Amino acid sequence: MSQSASRQPASRRIVLARRPVGAPQPDDFRMEGGPVPPCPPDGVLLRTLWLSLDPYMRGRMSDAPSYSPPVGIGEVMVGGTVSEVLESRADGLRPGDLVEGRTGWQEHAAVDPAAHLGGLRLLPPGPNPPSTALGILGMPGMTAYCGMLNIGQPKPGETVVVAAAAGPVGSLVGQIARMHGARAVGIAGGPDKCRHVLGLGFDACLDHHAPDLPGQLAAACPDGVDVYFENVGGAVWDAVLPRLNPFARVPVCGLVSLYNATELPPGPDRQALLMRAVLTKRLLLRGFIVSDFAAQREDFLQTVGGWLAEGRVRHREDVVDGLESAPGAFIGMLRGANFGKLLVRVAG
Amino acid sequence: MSQSASRQPASRRIVLARRPVGAPQPDDFRMEGGPVPPCPPDGVLLRTLWLSLDPYMRGRMSDAPSYSPPVGIGEVMVGGTVSEVLESRADGLRPGDLVEGRTGWQEHAAVDPAAHLGGLRLLPPGPNPPSTALGILGMPGMTAYCGMLNIGQPKPGETVVVAAAAGPVGSLVGQIARMHGARAVGIAGGPDKCRHVLGLGFDACLDHHAPDLPGQLAAACPDGVDVYFENVGGAVWDAVLPRLNPFARVPVCGLVSLYNATELPPGPDRQALLMRAVLTKRLLLRGFIVSDFAAQREDFLQTVGGWLAEGRVRHREDVVDGLESAPGAFIGMLRGANFGKLLVRVAG
Repeated sequence: MSQSASRQPASRRIVLARRPVGAPQPDDFRMEGGPVPPCPPDGVLLRTLWLSLDPYMRGRMSDAPSYSPPVGIGEVMVGGTVSEVLESRADGLRPGDLVEGRTGWQEHAAVDPAAHLGGLRLLPPGPNPPSTALGILGMPGMTAYCGMLNIGQPKPGETVVVAAAAGPVGSLVGQIARMHGARAVGIAGGPDKCRHVLGLGFDACLDHHAPDLPGQLAAACPDGVDVYFENVGGAVWDAVLPRLNPFARVPVCGLVSLYNATELPPGPDRQALLMRAVLTKRLLLRGFIVSDFAAQREDFLQTVGGWLAEGRVRHREDVVDGLESAPGAFIGMLRGANFGKLLVRVAG
Repeated sequence: MSQSASRQPASRRIVLARRPVGAPQPDDFRMEGGPVPPCPPDGVLLRTLWLSLDPYMRGRMSDAPSYSPPVGIGEVMVGGTVSEVLESRADGLRPGDLVEGRTGWQEHAAVDPAAHLGGLRLLPPGPNPPSTALGILGMPGMTAYCGMLNIGQPKPGETVVVAAAAGPVGSLVGQIARMHGARAVGIAGGPDKCRHVLGLGFDACLDHHAPDLPGQLAAACPDGVDVYFENVGGAVWDAVLPRLNPFARVPVCGLVSLYNATELPPGPDRQALLMRAVLTKRLLLRGFIVSDFAAQREDFLQTVGGWLAEGRVRHREDVVDGLESAPGAFIGMLRGANFGKLLVRVAG
């Protein structure tokens, strides 16, 4: 990552320097600096405390068609944040308030609350720490909750499989499966993560580094798979597809293993094989992003917030310090280097 | 097709002689003859009037895993029928009654109603001729109706695309789309079928023999595709996938273009491309067969039966005469030679 100033300026931000080809590189990002911006009329000036790093950001770095427009070259990288209000000219927000927003990879943000993408949400005081608003009580947690309740719909005695099971989405998917009386089988990278996943109450956790993932999955799912919560794609999906039971549901919220792909894999072309499985097993595949279920946000916050406060669900955070750590931590996350919800402590 | 007797016996049936490799051949079937069977205790003796020929039968000729077990070698080919009761020892059925059942490719059937797969359904007298119980008021019609109402869910102003649009499923799919205020775009083989489809009220019909199907589809669907009712797969699916709008629904009830395939097509492997489209467009793909919606049968019969009697929907039958015509007509259907619901007039 290049820097445009030799000494640390009053406020820093990280912009997209160029579009990655394959795995992002440090030089795809650029740190820029300048004065702290003024508070806009009717707006607020925010100081970023926490920045969330999430796999979807890889998609926003490319200009391939997707559900959201890409980040422009030279623009601040997108991202969810928890911030402190430094100055406010907006109704309902006061200095010292904590807000969740989408202000991106920067130390300060001048925001007109009405115009800002997704708006700002005042974080109410409560038992759960503010950083959870980016993890189990934020976009990743709501992805797990809405995907399971609306699409996965686990039933007692069924088997639910999820990859990246030590991550913020997968870990809640499995815990929700257990609450519904279903068997939860996780897949994670390495023995430490697998131990952690078992500690969350999953019935089994497979190490995707181990040989023979298909055979291990078959052994861990003797009654087949009724819900596969798809967030990775690739080799895990290849192992799961033959194990899916008739009427299995596949919420598709991410395909992390494909995000850095630069070309399609060689043949044969298995697309017809997938369609045939959809037909003969009467599968349900449904893609979604969390904003599709925006109307369920209050229900999610109340329900999962309550579970967390009561200790009925657990989560894990992986924290790096300083905005300058964001690119390296993000690059590592795409190859599974994080262990829990990846957060940058930007200040505070 | 071989025959086991030199003069026509009292009752004939067609059995599966061997499993086809690729497209079925006449010698994959065998005509057998014998005496008319006796009426079983508590059962009925039926004389087949109409035999339905449908693409799903190709799947039952193979022993690849599917939603139903295969027909055994030497067993009578499965198939829906309309029959006349010749003798009855069963409550509620009298000689002369007409019944719909699944008695297969044979001229007579001795049936224990309680044990028979799917049961027999007494056809009530009414304005619609008995053969419709195998087409627009039977399995194909119910496939269209239940697939559209439960999965496709067309809305006013949306665009619905269906292939085999001159066939019994596709023609009703498009007419239901129109009833919901949606635009209906059909795909059919040849100018005669396309004219027929337009006559049913479709907004457009593309000839899949014409060059540049993707370009023609794009021109016929300027606002993209919101519902693709999948019954063929292959080149049509390849043309439709890039045109699907966000939140498009894809009921998958058949993949006729794949049924005779003996191997996967060469690469690249586009399975990941399909999964990426599911994610980024938030598609819903759902496979189904008509029996999944068995609880909706009465609603279907009342609703579509009423439409048909009132002339609000139209259908077309393609009739061949004599049981011996079934193999050739079936083989032709798999390459699109039929024009409308394919029926064998077995007797009457």
